[in-house]
Amino acid sequence: MSQVRVAAFSISLDGFGAGPRQDLQNPVGVRGFELHTWLFQTDIFKKMTGQSGGTTGIDNDMAAQSFDNVGAWILGRNMFGPVRGPWPDDSWKGWWGDTPPYHTPVFVLTHHARAQLEMKGGTTFHFVTDGLESALKQAKEAAQGKDVRIGGGVATIRQYLVAGQIDEMHLAVAPVLLGDGEHLFAGINLRQLGYAVVRSVAGENATHVVIKKS
Amino acid sequence: MSQVRVAAFSISLDGFGAGPRQDLQNPVGVRGFELHTWLFQTDIFKKMTGQSGGTTGIDNDMAAQSFDNVGAWILGRNMFGPVRGPWPDDSWKGWWGDTPPYHTPVFVLTHHARAQLEMKGGTTFHFVTDGLESALKQAKEAAQGKDVRIGGGVATIRQYLVAGQIDEMHLAVAPVLLGDGEHLFAGINLRQLGYAVVRSVAGENATHVVIKKS
Repeated sequence: MSQVRVAAFSISLDGFGAGPRQDLQNPVGVRGFELHTWLFQTDIFKKMTGQSGGTTGIDNDMAAQSFDNVGAWILGRNMFGPVRGPWPDDSWKGWWGDTPPYHTPVFVLTHHARAQLEMKGGTTFHFVTDGLESALKQAKEAAQGKDVRIGGGVATIRQYLVAGQIDEMHLAVAPVLLGDGEHLFAGINLRQLGYAVVRSVAGENATHVVIKKS
Repeated sequence: MSQVRVAAFSISLDGFGAGPRQDLQNPVGVRGFELHTWLFQTDIFKKMTGQSGGTTGIDNDMAAQSFDNVGAWILGRNMFGPVRGPWPDDSWKGWWGDTPPYHTPVFVLTHHARAQLEMKGGTTFHFVTDGLESALKQAKEAAQGKDVRIGGGVATIRQYLVAGQIDEMHLAVAPVLLGDGEHLFAGINLRQLGYAVVRSVAGENATHVVIKKS
């Protein structure tokens, strides 16, 4: 059945999903890249970024599974880029170059309208200005029976969690302390929302935990 | 060198070190026992509680190490018991029966004076009413060059963390969601306080992470 999923989303031991003060130089906030060390070493990530020599093993398997059966993505505007407020022009096309790693329709939540943006490799960015529910509805239609993956960032995931819309989350708990940044779960009672841990597996460089809504 | 340590302290995936609403029936708060499932199965815990048939392996090794070289303990008053306010009498002697698992002097932080309490097996409870620093000073003296272990609960650990007094923490991250309770790190910037992860090892039923102050 089609699921709404968060997958391969990294958090620190102290619960942060991004560092503070995101900007052009710090796409996932200051020191946020430390969360993703486990991913950067994997074969699948290396291949996606035109490199070779990545690791195989549990981390790589979990990273690979995060892309399985994904028919559409939803991203928060800050995950799409560092631009704030109205789009000054159409020059910002995401962090990922000409060929983003999505290869599906991607729905970007924003308060500022913008024409859709077709990229190479099958990714089209659609800018959704009428809210979370609309984005999810459009993403489900676009996914044509496959899963909708909510890519992040933290604020977007939190909003969909609280709205009860996420079926499953695969978190990669990285053995680092960020100390500051965007906390994924602060003030959210996951248990009350119906979530429980269904799987926990130690990867080479992160602990992978899957939580599911019952 | 003598260290001030937290060891084998369990937290949930969502960061809680105890459940909510501690009372006589819920010594670690509602559902708090779920944090300790990994420990209850170990050989060392079974032996400590007069049982047999526990597991050996990484969880057991980490539990065993938590008791190595400990010369004194510090506990918060709520870890000692569910009694609040002035002691009505001396009948409450801890959760642990006649022979508590400490076997050293134990300094209990409280606002309410009480005579020291000698138990079987080498545990003596000392009730400290003049604050964190005094308790630590007394515990260091009593430890005679061995480590001081801060047993908890959450509020006590947080106070010593913020005071910069903890050298090392071994946390056992349990694959459970509590949703509510006492959060170990909320509002504390561990990185700014100088902590970093120095070890992460997957046990059979918890992920063991050691953080150290540089």
